Amino acid sequence: MNKTLVIGANGQIGKQLIGQMALAKMPVKAMVRSAEQANDLEKLGAETIVADLEAALPDEAFSDCDKVVFTAGSGGKTGADKTILVDLWGAVKAVDMAKKHNIKQFVMVSARDAGDPENGTPAIKHYNICKHFADKHLLESGVPFTILRPGLLTNEAATGLITTRRPETKEAMSITRADVAACILQSLDHSETVNQVDEIYNGDTPISDAFIKAVTNRLG
Amino acid sequence: MNKTLVIGANGQIGKQLIGQMALAKMPVKAMVRSAEQANDLEKLGAETIVADLEAALPDEAFSDCDKVVFTAGSGGKTGADKTILVDLWGAVKAVDMAKKHNIKQFVMVSARDAGDPENGTPAIKHYNICKHFADKHLLESGVPFTILRPGLLTNEAATGLITTRRPETKEAMSITRADVAACILQSLDHSETVNQVDEIYNGDTPISDAFIKAVTNRLG
Repeated sequence: MNKTLVIGANGQIGKQLIGQMALAKMPVKAMVRSAEQANDLEKLGAETIVADLEAALPDEAFSDCDKVVFTAGSGGKTGADKTILVDLWGAVKAVDMAKKHNIKQFVMVSARDAGDPENGTPAIKHYNICKHFADKHLLESGVPFTILRPGLLTNEAATGLITTRRPETKEAMSITRADVAACILQSLDHSETVNQVDEIYNGDTPISDAFIKAVTNRLG
Repeated sequence: MNKTLVIGANGQIGKQLIGQMALAKMPVKAMVRSAEQANDLEKLGAETIVADLEAALPDEAFSDCDKVVFTAGSGGKTGADKTILVDLWGAVKAVDMAKKHNIKQFVMVSARDAGDPENGTPAIKHYNICKHFADKHLLESGVPFTILRPGLLTNEAATGLITTRRPETKEAMSITRADVAACILQSLDHSETVNQVDEIYNGDTPISDAFIKAVTNRLG
């Protein structure tokens, strides 16, 4: 046990997370769509399972894990039908399986405006609506959750510094994928992040302190 | 009062519903997107209000109504992003406004497989998922509901005969739009349909009896 299932392990955040977890010697099972993808992740030391998020999820993906990370996404290149099938319905199916298998923490990689799609970026409103209902399903599931809502994702190098407070300017509402991966790892490793919902942006607080501050905010 | 707001009044089902309500002398307010659409429906005797389901819904659409019909849909010609924005999010916003305005019955025109998208027609799974979450939002809202889940919609003439039991063959799982409109009218006119969820197909029971049978089924 104490193994974490990572759904979307071959994605841009997923790959970095697998790498960071391997370095930290955290047991991980990477769920990917194909044997080729599995091969790459196994080189990083991950156990892998091949499964299609658009089909029924196999029990054996969850049965020997106690945590789940959902960082899958259909991406911006496919149609919105895939956003519905993967980002929303895939997440809902993963939460249902997490409940069935008594998972102790489900870390959802969400989006900045998933809480309030009406006031988010108009061009991706349909995406934020899908993320909204995925988050809502998790929040109402009874499965212990950590919901991370990153701003605009960038490919810059990790900074190790974030903030959970929404910056004043749109320009500042970004975060590197490497730092998102580090926030996931921090969440998995610190039980005080359970039942938190946090926006995350690059900022000036070390990741190890940022969520403690969020807890203080939550309690007071 | 006793006025019904019809959202999606210019749609293929909506127009027939407005015509049937006008004949039955039921007070109706037709919500449409443009003044041109309003003009046509006013000829049928309907009061109209011009509003965009993708924007914020105006209070004055709901404030003097006690019932709401949601029969809007983005249709099959636009992208799935519009399915999310109209069929899902538009419905959610309408339900929220119905709650705010203490609406006494919300008739949702849903879809056959909205209850179980996983086992519906694969080609429109993304559509059924959107309808699923729209229905779920209504079911959990506290607003008195009638959810109608028609099979494949056809443009044949009204038959006046339906069934609420799922037929054994896919071919039989259809219903004319005219009969769907008549089912909506029947629902508005008969309070025993409140808090029912029914699939509807053309069948051999007069519409006036079909929902009573459903109530009997529900009660035991």
